[in-house]
Amino acid sequence: MSREFTLALCQTKSFIEKEQSREMAASYVGKAADNGASVVSLPEMWNCPYSNSYFKKFSEPETGESVGFMSDLARKNKIYLIGGSIPECEADNGKTQGDGDAIYNTCFVFDPKGNIIGKHRKIHLFDISIKGGMTFMESKTLSAGDSVTVVDTEFCKVGIAICYDVRFPKLFNKMAGCLDAELIVLPAAFNMTTGPAHWELLMKARALDNQVYFAANSPARDPNSPYQAFGHSMIVDPWGKICEESDENLSIIYGKIDLDYVDSVREQIPISKQNKPDLYR
Amino acid sequence: MSREFTLALCQTKSFIEKEQSREMAASYVGKAADNGASVVSLPEMWNCPYSNSYFKKFSEPETGESVGFMSDLARKNKIYLIGGSIPECEADNGKTQGDGDAIYNTCFVFDPKGNIIGKHRKIHLFDISIKGGMTFMESKTLSAGDSVTVVDTEFCKVGIAICYDVRFPKLFNKMAGCLDAELIVLPAAFNMTTGPAHWELLMKARALDNQVYFAANSPARDPNSPYQAFGHSMIVDPWGKICEESDENLSIIYGKIDLDYVDSVREQIPISKQNKPDLYR
Repeated sequence: MSREFTLALCQTKSFIEKEQSREMAASYVGKAADNGASVVSLPEMWNCPYSNSYFKKFSEPETGESVGFMSDLARKNKIYLIGGSIPECEADNGKTQGDGDAIYNTCFVFDPKGNIIGKHRKIHLFDISIKGGMTFMESKTLSAGDSVTVVDTEFCKVGIAICYDVRFPKLFNKMAGCLDAELIVLPAAFNMTTGPAHWELLMKARALDNQVYFAANSPARDPNSPYQAFGHSMIVDPWGKICEESDENLSIIYGKIDLDYVDSVREQIPISKQNKPDLYR
Repeated sequence: MSREFTLALCQTKSFIEKEQSREMAASYVGKAADNGASVVSLPEMWNCPYSNSYFKKFSEPETGESVGFMSDLARKNKIYLIGGSIPECEADNGKTQGDGDAIYNTCFVFDPKGNIIGKHRKIHLFDISIKGGMTFMESKTLSAGDSVTVVDTEFCKVGIAICYDVRFPKLFNKMAGCLDAELIVLPAAFNMTTGPAHWELLMKARALDNQVYFAANSPARDPNSPYQAFGHSMIVDPWGKICEESDENLSIIYGKIDLDYVDSVREQIPISKQNKPDLYR
C-alpha cells in the first residue's frame, strides 16, 4: 500500500445551465489528474446554484445524469473522485418508501473504475441567522442525512462530510477515532459572513484535534451567483498547518497526503491513547 | 444576576523561593481586583518551577500554606480566584487511603469569601515527545485527576481545565453542553514548540465549538526557568475572536465577559440544538 499520494481540490463554480457546470468540472478534474492527483474533489453543489430556489429544480436521483457523468470522469481519469455535492432526489420508485419528495445535499464518491464507493448525505442542515449578516434556512427545501461516511481507498480511509457538518466536532472524532479515517474531505460553501470569521479556524481545528489531513473544497466566488461563496479551499495537515490554500478565484490546489506523517504526529502527541472517554459522557 | 463582569488573567512567574511567588501573585491579583475584575486567575504552577524535579519538593496538601494564601487573597480582594495550579499532595492522613504518595497538578477555586468552591486535578498528563522539539513526561512524577470540574459563581458556571486537558475536545463539550459552563478558564503552560504551533488555534477552537468565553492563563516566559513558557495568555469570545491577548512578558489582561453575547451566539448558530449525538457514538 502506497504511503503517499496527491490530493487535488477543484475550486469550480456552477452555472444556470448544467451542461456548463459539467464542462467546467470535467476540465478541472481532467487537469488535476493530468498533474498527478490520485484523489480529486469537487465543491459543494458543483452543478447547482446554491439557493433554496434551485435545489428542487436541479435535483437528480442516483440514476441521473450527474452521477453518471461523475462516474465517467473518475473512470476516464483513473482517479478517486469525491464528487462535491449535488441536490439528490429519490428515484421515482422511491416514492413507494414514503420519502419521494425528499431532496438531499449529497456527495457521491467513485473509485478509479467509476464505481460508487460512498455516498454522504449532509447530516447537519445549514440553518443560521446571523445578526447583521447571513440568514439561510437550508431545511426549507432539503432533508438531512442520517449516517456517517468513511470510504475505503487503496491509500487510506477517507471521511466525507459537507459544509455545515464541520461545526459538529464529534462527527470527525468518530471518523478518525473509531472509523480510522486519515484524510477527511469536506465539500463546503461558506459565505462572506462565516467564511472570514470561521473557515480557517474550523478546518485547522478538525485537522489538529483528529490528527488527520483535512481538506475543504469551496466553490469559487461568483459575483453573478445568488450566494457569494468564501472560496479559500484548503488542505490542512495533521499538525494543524495549512499545506495549500486557494484564494476566492477559480483554481485547483494540490496537496501531498503523507500517511507516515499522520502516524508520526499521532506518535508525538498521542492523544488518541491518552483520552478518557468515560469522563466525557 | 448580573449579565456582565470583568475577568482578569495574571501572567505571573514562579520562583525558587515560594515566598517570592506568593508576593508576585498577591501583587498582580490585588491590582486586577483594584482595576475592577470580579474573577481573577493565576497561571499553571504559579508557585513552582515547571519541572519534574520540583513538583514533589514543592507539593502541598489542601491544608497547606499555598491554599490558605489563595483563600486569603480571594477574601481580601472580594473576588472569585481561579488559583492557576499548584503541585498538590495528599495530606499525611491521606496515606491511609493508599495514595499518599500521589502528587496532582491542581487548580483550587475560591469564592469572594475565601471558600473553596472547586478543585480540578489535571486529567490529562502532559506526556509528549516532539521530534526535534520538546519532550516532557509529566506522568513520571504526577498523578491524573479523574473528574470534570465546573464551578458555580454568582455570574455563571465556569469550567476549569489545565493545560494539556485542552487537547481533548469532548471534555469541553461536556462542560458547555451538559454542565452549562459559559466561561472556561485554562491555566496552562505551553512551551516554545507547541505554543507557536497550537496555542491560539486550540483556544479559539474550544471557544467557537462550545460557544463559550475561553480564557487561557500562561505564566510569563522566564529565561532563568527550566521551562520556557509560551506566554500569550488570551481571552477568546464565543464567536472565536480574541478579545485580549498578552505577549510573553509579565502582565495582566482583562476581558469583559458578556453572558448576553453567549446567548446571542448560541441563537445565531444553534449547533447545540442541531447536533445529533446518536450518530457520533
